[in-house]
Amino acid sequence: MFEAAELGRSVSKADYKQAEPDLRLALLQAQRQARHRGLPVILLLHGVAGAGKGEMLNQLLEWLDSRGVQTHVFWDETDEELQRPRWWRYWRKMPAAGNISVMFGAWYARLIEDFQQQRIDDDGVSAELERIREVEQMLIDDGALLVKFWLHLPQDEQARRVEKRRKDPQSHWHMAPETAKAAEHYEAFTDLATRVIRETDTGHSPWYLIEATDRRFRDLTAGRTLLRAIEARLSSADPAEPIRTSHAPALPESASAQVTILDQVDQSHAIDRPEYKKRKKALDPAINRLGWLGFEARHSVVVVFEGADAGGKGGAIRRLTEALDARLYQVIPIAAPNDEEALHHYLWRFWRQVPRDGYWTLFDRSWYGRVLVERVEGLAAEGEWRRAYHEINNFEAQLAEHGVTVLKFWLSIDPDEQLRRFEARKETPYKKHKITDEDWRNRERWDDYKAAVNEMVIRTSTEYAPWHIIPANNKRYARIEVMRIASEAVAQALGDDDHQRS
Amino acid sequence: MFEAAELGRSVSKADYKQAEPDLRLALLQAQRQARHRGLPVILLLHGVAGAGKGEMLNQLLEWLDSRGVQTHVFWDETDEELQRPRWWRYWRKMPAAGNISVMFGAWYARLIEDFQQQRIDDDGVSAELERIREVEQMLIDDGALLVKFWLHLPQDEQARRVEKRRKDPQSHWHMAPETAKAAEHYEAFTDLATRVIRETDTGHSPWYLIEATDRRFRDLTAGRTLLRAIEARLSSADPAEPIRTSHAPALPESASAQVTILDQVDQSHAIDRPEYKKRKKALDPAINRLGWLGFEARHSVVVVFEGADAGGKGGAIRRLTEALDARLYQVIPIAAPNDEEALHHYLWRFWRQVPRDGYWTLFDRSWYGRVLVERVEGLAAEGEWRRAYHEINNFEAQLAEHGVTVLKFWLSIDPDEQLRRFEARKETPYKKHKITDEDWRNRERWDDYKAAVNEMVIRTSTEYAPWHIIPANNKRYARIEVMRIASEAVAQALGDDDHQRS
Repeated sequence: MFEAAELGRSVSKADYKQAEPDLRLALLQAQRQARHRGLPVILLLHGVAGAGKGEMLNQLLEWLDSRGVQTHVFWDETDEELQRPRWWRYWRKMPAAGNISVMFGAWYARLIEDFQQQRIDDDGVSAELERIREVEQMLIDDGALLVKFWLHLPQDEQARRVEKRRKDPQSHWHMAPETAKAAEHYEAFTDLATRVIRETDTGHSPWYLIEATDRRFRDLTAGRTLLRAIEARLSSADPAEPIRTSHAPALPESASAQVTILDQVDQSHAIDRPEYKKRKKALDPAINRLGWLGFEARHSVVVVFEGADAGGKGGAIRRLTEALDARLYQVIPIAAPNDEEALHHYLWRFWRQVPRDGYWTLFDRSWYGRVLVERVEGLAAEGEWRRAYHEINNFEAQLAEHGVTVLKFWLSIDPDEQLRRFEARKETPYKKHKITDEDWRNRERWDDYKAAVNEMVIRTSTEYAPWHIIPANNKRYARIEVMRIASEAVAQALGDDDHQRS
Repeated sequence: MFEAAELGRSVSKADYKQAEPDLRLALLQAQRQARHRGLPVILLLHGVAGAGKGEMLNQLLEWLDSRGVQTHVFWDETDEELQRPRWWRYWRKMPAAGNISVMFGAWYARLIEDFQQQRIDDDGVSAELERIREVEQMLIDDGALLVKFWLHLPQDEQARRVEKRRKDPQSHWHMAPETAKAAEHYEAFTDLATRVIRETDTGHSPWYLIEATDRRFRDLTAGRTLLRAIEARLSSADPAEPIRTSHAPALPESASAQVTILDQVDQSHAIDRPEYKKRKKALDPAINRLGWLGFEARHSVVVVFEGADAGGKGGAIRRLTEALDARLYQVIPIAAPNDEEALHHYLWRFWRQVPRDGYWTLFDRSWYGRVLVERVEGLAAEGEWRRAYHEINNFEAQLAEHGVTVLKFWLSIDPDEQLRRFEARKETPYKKHKITDEDWRNRERWDDYKAAVNEMVIRTSTEYAPWHIIPANNKRYARIEVMRIASEAVAQALGDDDHQRS
């Protein structure tokens, strides 16, 4: 594959001088249009050691307007990063709409290094390549432009440079220690690189192989390639939404005629106050203890609360947090995104809230808004909410792989119970504020929501993050259920046998 | 002092039950009003070990609406925090307008621990207390409500609890290791606490001493105190702006009659192209090398670029970044704050951008906007921009104390030169976009800006972060000056003697 980048191409000083002004002007204009169009651009740089990624980027940044360009290197993983799922460190650096994030190596450098350090084997590489394809597709589907440059040098040229730099007192500063050794592993590196490039060179995010032997050729090629990529993206419509095929059982057309999972919820469950007190008295200390056990074991927990308005999310969250120590959890209420969040992929603001090892994060509503309110209210296009099932499963899988316990509760009430609660809220002084016109509007969409919930549960109830449908007409029953399920799940994750089932 | 919290006060179960509903309702209403008014609330909790800060907070959170309340503990300092000025970890947790941040111990816990661990002596305590007063005043001046609770227990009661908890299998989980030893240091702790409380108990941010022996009394008192504090703050107008007295030389009333620092800039400096190339050729590798030296030494640099429109900020930044490796710096262009930033203290968004040890951050415009454009355009009240000088010096002092090299450049051109450049920009295709109507408007305010710059330089040119006024009519001269000053300052900070002066 790399033969294509060993043709010894070069550009004369004269040609370079002649070409530079136009290229620079065109790049600035393309960058401005991209900003104007709100296009997020990810420029990913990797390649053989000594090819001059830094030099080349310096040249690109000289041509571009540095406003709106952020450069990110991923050398040492900080403990805040190590204590979260692996992709968290990349998500936090994703460009806002209209900006350019230059990423050095990023997930590719880590994959190759993990393999070279024998932290992962061939299967590990395959799995990570699949993950990479999925995440890159997710970003592209969301409208981002992903440009991947691979800078290549022939083996002898690399050896020459590494040697030259080692001797040069001025430039040895930008030789990371492993770079010096790179020459020895040239073949192993390019073999793996060949596989990585081949398997991640997709139609939407192609790799651009850049011959880096001649500096002028390298920089001019990089500049022109970036220019072409931005111009092509701007001139094309947003990528077509791939409508993923449905694995959900076909439901009758008319929403009202649909019998959904929610129709099968047994609302007869109820417990009386004495029973409730008894159960809670046992669960409170058990959960408090599990919170601290988890903290010591650096085990974190993500709990999602969804449900119809007045379904009792707030009450269930409060009962759980009463048991937990306030120092170990955060409750994140999800409303409309703020403008910084709105400039990113819709999952970005949830990635931001992923807890560090040892802590709990409780989401009062969540990323499932994408396939619930955004779907029903038409705030997300069909392609957007359809592919969200897959994206969400991917997100939760990454949490689970990191060892996070993911709990998802749907608090289910029937329309009559909701009506009773709406009426009741008007009576209770400190609950009055909780009932709004929107609640009444949503109520009219009951059947649409029912269908959306049904599909959501079918598509996103995974073995690593199953949905728990809680019959919630009886608040006491629902609250105890949430506490019981949460405590048992965490106890199991911690391998804690003394946890007394309640 | 603590006698006041050893009176053995308690509340009967009946009284508690009777008082709770009204208190809860009042707290919810106060919280809603605070959110409505955009009041940021910082609830700082500290006190003797075993007093039940966690228990008490759990009770408060049960009464409040958990939406908009974030709890922050400051146990282990992460490396991302250790690699920045000490207060960075607190700034990142400051509440947005309308929210409540509950902070455990925070800067008080650290001060006391630093002293107990003999990391600081008496003078260190005095210095840190002064810093605390300044920062708290800064937050309050900005409109935040700061409520500080100190939970107290008599010595014997603490000893009893520590012993009881050690025996109790259920609750020993929330005993941090040092807590167990706390009983032995009771007196030393309360002695220091007495001093800390006395010296930080200011009119605007008083300490509330809470007797924590009886749980019901403790929680009811905490709830009522928080309620009173919020209500008082809401019913009062925003705190009066203390207009700090001016140390600046009196300037004549008429701006045009003022002779300022800028009038004394010698614009005759100029270097020709050959000289420029020669100097730059020497400076480029020197600065690149210093960048890597600094990275190895984990030394970071903050560079501020300010100047009139068309003063050449962009060009000077580009020349500096051409020399630096792209992996070691960020350029942060400062425009209007986004809505998340607008909900915080105006310095919050700059604290966010403080680089980790080893990196450079270049600000294209900066926090000085507060005393320049915001002052001249009337976007900040007089009290706000007046006190900003002190706040900015404080901020930069914290950077310097952490070892950051802070460089501030004012690129100075005269009105005729600016006019020439405005005209020229219209001609150069890729510069056209840089000239806007606003530039022409600002130009009319030239004298107002001149006066603002004059006062800014006088008030914020400190020994640890001096202003460098760069005559910039000649671009080549200005760019070389910026590179020369930056390289010499960093070389000096790194104690690098081989750095050849250029």
